[in-house]
Amino acid sequence: MGKNKIVLAYSGGLDTSYCIKYLEEKDYEVYAVYVDTSGDFDTKKFKQFGKRALELGAATFEKLIALDSFYNQIIRFLIYGNILKNNTYPLSVSAERVIQADQIVAYAKKIGAKYIAHGCTGAGNDQIRFDTIFNILAPEIKIIAPIRTNNITRKEEIAYLKKRGVHLNWEKAQYSVNRGLWGTTIGGSETLTSDQPLPPSAYPSIPIKTDSLNLKIDFHKGELRAIDGQEDHPTKLIQQINRVCNQYAIGRDIHVGDTIIGIKGRVGFEAGGPLLLIKAHHLLEKHTLSKWQQFQKEQLAQFYGMLLHEGNYWDPVMRDIEAFLSQSQKAVSGTIFCTLFPQRFELLGVESPSDLMQHSLGNYGEQNTGWEAKDVEGFIKISSLSNKIYHEIHKKK
Amino acid sequence: MGKNKIVLAYSGGLDTSYCIKYLEEKDYEVYAVYVDTSGDFDTKKFKQFGKRALELGAATFEKLIALDSFYNQIIRFLIYGNILKNNTYPLSVSAERVIQADQIVAYAKKIGAKYIAHGCTGAGNDQIRFDTIFNILAPEIKIIAPIRTNNITRKEEIAYLKKRGVHLNWEKAQYSVNRGLWGTTIGGSETLTSDQPLPPSAYPSIPIKTDSLNLKIDFHKGELRAIDGQEDHPTKLIQQINRVCNQYAIGRDIHVGDTIIGIKGRVGFEAGGPLLLIKAHHLLEKHTLSKWQQFQKEQLAQFYGMLLHEGNYWDPVMRDIEAFLSQSQKAVSGTIFCTLFPQRFELLGVESPSDLMQHSLGNYGEQNTGWEAKDVEGFIKISSLSNKIYHEIHKKK
Amino acid sequence: MGKNKIVLAYSGGLDTSYCIKYLEEKDYEVYAVYVDTSGDFDTKKFKQFGKRALELGAATFEKLIALDSFYNQIIRFLIYGNILKNNTYPLSVSAERVIQADQIVAYAKKIGAKYIAHGCTGAGNDQIRFDTIFNILAPEIKIIAPIRTNNITRKEEIAYLKKRGVHLNWEKAQYSVNRGLWGTTIGGSETLTSDQPLPPSAYPSIPIKTDSLNLKIDFHKGELRAIDGQEDHPTKLIQQINRVCNQYAIGRDIHVGDTIIGIKGRVGFEAGGPLLLIKAHHLLEKHTLSKWQQFQKEQLAQFYGMLLHEGNYWDPVMRDIEAFLSQSQKAVSGTIFCTLFPQRFELLGVESPSDLMQHSLGNYGEQNTGWEAKDVEGFIKISSLSNKIYHEIHKKK
Amino acid sequence: MGKNKIVLAYSGGLDTSYCIKYLEEKDYEVYAVYVDTSGDFDTKKFKQFGKRALELGAATFEKLIALDSFYNQIIRFLIYGNILKNNTYPLSVSAERVIQADQIVAYAKKIGAKYIAHGCTGAGNDQIRFDTIFNILAPEIKIIAPIRTNNITRKEEIAYLKKRGVHLNWEKAQYSVNRGLWGTTIGGSETLTSDQPLPPSAYPSIPIKTDSLNLKIDFHKGELRAIDGQEDHPTKLIQQINRVCNQYAIGRDIHVGDTIIGIKGRVGFEAGGPLLLIKAHHLLEKHTLSKWQQFQKEQLAQFYGMLLHEGNYWDPVMRDIEAFLSQSQKAVSGTIFCTLFPQRFELLGVESPSDLMQHSLGNYGEQNTGWEAKDVEGFIKISSLSNKIYHEIHKKK
Repeated sequence: MGKNKIVLAYSGGLDTSYCIKYLEEKDYEVYAVYVDTSGDFDTKKFKQFGKRALELGAATFEKLIALDSFYNQIIRFLIYGNILKNNTYPLSVSAERVIQADQIVAYAKKIGAKYIAHGCTGAGNDQIRFDTIFNILAPEIKIIAPIRTNNITRKEEIAYLKKRGVHLNWEKAQYSVNRGLWGTTIGGSETLTSDQPLPPSAYPSIPIKTDSLNLKIDFHKGELRAIDGQEDHPTKLIQQINRVCNQYAIGRDIHVGDTIIGIKGRVGFEAGGPLLLIKAHHLLEKHTLSKWQQFQKEQLAQFYGMLLHEGNYWDPVMRDIEAFLSQSQKAVSGTIFCTLFPQRFELLGVESPSDLMQHSLGNYGEQNTGWEAKDVEGFIKISSLSNKIYHEIHKKK
Repeated sequence: MGKNKIVLAYSGGLDTSYCIKYLEEKDYEVYAVYVDTSGDFDTKKFKQFGKRALELGAATFEKLIALDSFYNQIIRFLIYGNILKNNTYPLSVSAERVIQADQIVAYAKKIGAKYIAHGCTGAGNDQIRFDTIFNILAPEIKIIAPIRTNNITRKEEIAYLKKRGVHLNWEKAQYSVNRGLWGTTIGGSETLTSDQPLPPSAYPSIPIKTDSLNLKIDFHKGELRAIDGQEDHPTKLIQQINRVCNQYAIGRDIHVGDTIIGIKGRVGFEAGGPLLLIKAHHLLEKHTLSKWQQFQKEQLAQFYGMLLHEGNYWDPVMRDIEAFLSQSQKAVSGTIFCTLFPQRFELLGVESPSDLMQHSLGNYGEQNTGWEAKDVEGFIKISSLSNKIYHEIHKKK
Repeated sequence: MGKNKIVLAYSGGLDTSYCIKYLEEKDYEVYAVYVDTSGDFDTKKFKQFGKRALELGAATFEKLIALDSFYNQIIRFLIYGNILKNNTYPLSVSAERVIQADQIVAYAKKIGAKYIAHGCTGAGNDQIRFDTIFNILAPEIKIIAPIRTNNITRKEEIAYLKKRGVHLNWEKAQYSVNRGLWGTTIGGSETLTSDQPLPPSAYPSIPIKTDSLNLKIDFHKGELRAIDGQEDHPTKLIQQINRVCNQYAIGRDIHVGDTIIGIKGRVGFEAGGPLLLIKAHHLLEKHTLSKWQQFQKEQLAQFYGMLLHEGNYWDPVMRDIEAFLSQSQKAVSGTIFCTLFPQRFELLGVESPSDLMQHSLGNYGEQNTGWEAKDVEGFIKISSLSNKIYHEIHKKK
Repeated sequence: MGKNKIVLAYSGGLDTSYCIKYLEEKDYEVYAVYVDTSGDFDTKKFKQFGKRALELGAATFEKLIALDSFYNQIIRFLIYGNILKNNTYPLSVSAERVIQADQIVAYAKKIGAKYIAHGCTGAGNDQIRFDTIFNILAPEIKIIAPIRTNNITRKEEIAYLKKRGVHLNWEKAQYSVNRGLWGTTIGGSETLTSDQPLPPSAYPSIPIKTDSLNLKIDFHKGELRAIDGQEDHPTKLIQQINRVCNQYAIGRDIHVGDTIIGIKGRVGFEAGGPLLLIKAHHLLEKHTLSKWQQFQKEQLAQFYGMLLHEGNYWDPVMRDIEAFLSQSQKAVSGTIFCTLFPQRFELLGVESPSDLMQHSLGNYGEQNTGWEAKDVEGFIKISSLSNKIYHEIHKKK
């Protein structure tokens, strides 16, 4: 009988390289899988990753491109909901992990593997997102997390590999960076403090633009449709906007939040594209949605973001909220005009066939062809009645 | 018997000047009142306003300084709740109107007036905020709104005054500006469109700074306590921050929102101080509040802002929400470090005795002295159980 | 040229009889319309209504059966959402008025009428529900409300009709009763007080059963499908359940609530069918929905009920919430067992292919095949971590 | 040096009796503590419990009466919030466990114990509530849960004790019953199914009344003050109401809910007193609170109940919600009239100095002295404006 197949979520770094060697020694047949949710991974560097995986002992190496799933399953709803965790962070990493876990499970089922491995430690959010989704979608598959279970340090990993003749350069980068379609996160010594910002050099993008740039962003039923009139698939347009925003160093900030484990965490991020798209989309909604749509959307979307962040993507309430959000986008079509400047952007205005400002009753505060003074007087009388009574009753006493 | 006393909410502009003349001719004894919620009104210009009121026929003129009430009754809670209407606008004008209405009612009761007048048209939000509060707090007082009731135009007002020998220069300013402690709003021909931004010249502040500036902002139990270590009363500190932010042209944007009347409205604003304070306060809360405190606060505060905006300050639910918000601030003390740049600011970090990041269990993602791998494995197993069951049940079918 | 066509929402009572005469004298061509949302209107009595309308001067009389619309557009969602206003009242009348207004507008458009009339006074909720929907769906149609506008009393109506030779018996019933598919409401002198209940005689149903009765209620994806195994259209099943519940005098209570006008109102109701169905449906949901589905559903449904009650059925947020609710019902299929007794019912249990209690991991509190002690210990350690830190930080000080 | 002090949460049953023996053999000095949250524990039976504890090897036995803490810390807020889990269950047990854990921690700190023990298995909610609170309030104290850790069965416990000469009658009762001030819960073989109700004999109370009984319940600022005019401490009044309701077998039902562990659980309960008090209090609120107070209260209270149920009483958000709820009760004073019948009760009405129905503007639907027809017409015109525009815009297309 053959070896046990194990699918390893392989990132090309030290931790998952160690895992390949370790698992292979434990007599697993290692299927190394890299799930790409960025779309702009350097091909050359990537081939090197694959080569290394095989040299370390992986039986196969596969790159799964998950951009479309990422957009259709998640990013779409993050835009519909204008979702920023703690009003700041577009959930860049949290959202990726869900898709990566989904893809890995699907791959494991396809090849008939009974084991899934990952290189997470016991300290972070990602292990929880991964395992939660593996548990739910494939309870029959066993999860192996060698570094977490054996509490292996970086130093021990390097020593282990060296002993087995693997002499790669594993020097730790000053900042740990995670790039993806929906933003890049950056951790470093500063993000372990409460009071230190990241230096500009910690951010991977290189700002080269100093002049301003006008952009026209088109949405159709809440979905990104064109930039400057050029239609393309949303994932392509997001990549394009990311590139432009990076040239202006737009969207750098620090997210401070509650990890799933319950402690506070701090992480730098650069997500100009996501922030610009969310703000542009939100502006369009201000023109096209009713007051109560906006109110309820915000409450639900905040909750959706929280569950997504915590890895609970597969709770059925998420589908219910997505149904709400999708329905709410029916009228969210139009063009947003904006200008990029170094490190910031301005939203100028919108043009939309569903713009609720463009009706037959005149403009706010100027004319009022739809009603007369006595109507407003009546409105005020009736709408203040309940509190008038409340105060009458409570003054009496 | 004497004339009927009427208290007029007088702003010094054409509309309320017309009202003085009109009411005086109708045989009212006009008590012109200016409620100052900005604190930086030009004294000379102001004396001129008073003089004009008396010349037009007012029996008296009074300036009521309402800065402390404004802060204690409202601004405080807007900061506690990090309240930005539609995630953009600090409710600069909406908040002022409530205090102005309160002060006018109190004044009218003090002098035994049975009438209150204002110069609002039938087209805007302010008439509703004013009348709602008058109705609730003083149902026995009759409201007179000559311009609304008679649907008087600007041109008719000028003609009316001219006929009575009042030849002031009433040339309409290109932009109508409302300055206050919690921000300045700007309306103009552009804000009647959906797609036009305001030109820089429309904003009243004059940006003079090009270098960056570091600031330290201190909060104590949610209340502003000091800037750069200098303690002062919150209203003084807000005025100081407003001045600094104006020098950098920070906080200019356009608010698009639902008016109380139900149509969409658009208005420019400049509110660097409020935005900086809210964002700084919010960052401190990220470090000092529990996940659920932040979640519930945001939901309640969004609602609080909506009711305030719509003039429903006196609904008793507002007091209940204020009790929630006040209690939530118990631990919100500390210093926020920030840097101002032309047209934007950066929050660098915080220092707080209640910082939940600074505990004995190590840092997120690094060490984990408070738990072991098996604890997280157990956590994941249990916390994913419900959705595991859900998917087991639904796969069967 | 002919007379102006006017569609009158005709109920057969004094108010709308007066309206026919009045409108006919004002030279309108009156199209009297009765919108039936009960389904059990007595045919004989009904013919009499039609005859009277024509005798009074109506050009035509039409009965519009709106049961299916009522169910599909509204009742369905009230069940999905388990909606009871103030946790008590199934919105019997509020829901009907929306459908009636919709049907009247559609009819008016069909016959090309430019006017719609109703017999409401200026004191109640119904005028607001009617006019709101007329305003939204047919802003080009003018609303005529003779009794409201002229503030006509009952006595004046009778005198007016008598003068014109109409000598019907308009003696006022002791209780004003509104019967419908989703419950019957009863107003009387007691409901104008705060402390008086309605006497049993005020309720229209006649309880004849003293023994208990077992029922099996089947839902399929949230929709009523069968009673005691007999499938039928939901409206038929609701009528059947109403009849049975009425025999037991189940579902009598008094609703105390906030009217749209802002004052408190009190009204008796008998709605055994709606209450039984909602409670049965809710029990099924407890077995088939996730914790968060139930939590969010309840929050949204409460809001949905409030807007519906206030006549804001056509706010687009209602469609968004309906999308959420519909999606949430995917798994809500099964049978509920219940027993009826005089004036109360008991829910015994459920049977469902989607029952989340019936999984492979054993029963609550008994066995635990899905996890071990150490898993729960780990779960507790991690899930209490955030508050442990909170208390560590706050004890220090 | 002496033995290690350990505080055992002792209930007098098999599990905790086993724990005494087991811990004593492990060389702990066992401080057996019974925390009484019912107030009606039989004194004789109780003495027997104490005697048994000492015979089994406990160093001391103590009964801590926690009725007042239970009321002040929790029950009060459950009434303020009208809290019924899943709209059914008054959280009888969940609420008790919090107080018991608090009392045990306080006792352990008082006597300087470094260990706390309980007899929970690894299957239920209580272990989580206990350990969570122990972790938070006393992280320095180690928790010992012998039955959970060693996965001991009932049979093994009996054998263990028998071997050590303890030959008590441990015959398992057919139903496991937990009595408390805020309701009694009942588990049995039926509650492990989804479709079986509990037989009447499973409920501990003996219904003896067949006639009806009128009651007057007085609340003052949300707190229970008197029954039939007799003032007493709330805990005494609750005990009195419990006794009366039990005579009518009022408040029997089955709770189906999500356990903290994530699986669905079902448990019978009898809680006539809590249900009557909550419904009476709620009725008083309908008369005395504004629409928005009721709306927000319900949303927050539902959340409060969920966190309490899950043992998260010490999350600081709970204090914030309590501040909201307390403030909301300012006006909730008055008398509720009700009638008890076998197995059900009716609320007849209320009398309150803060009753918002009793104002100067007349009754709903009858007279309207506070407004005129044109006011309502104006109100409708303005309040329907936003949706009128929405439909105008969307018809165009």
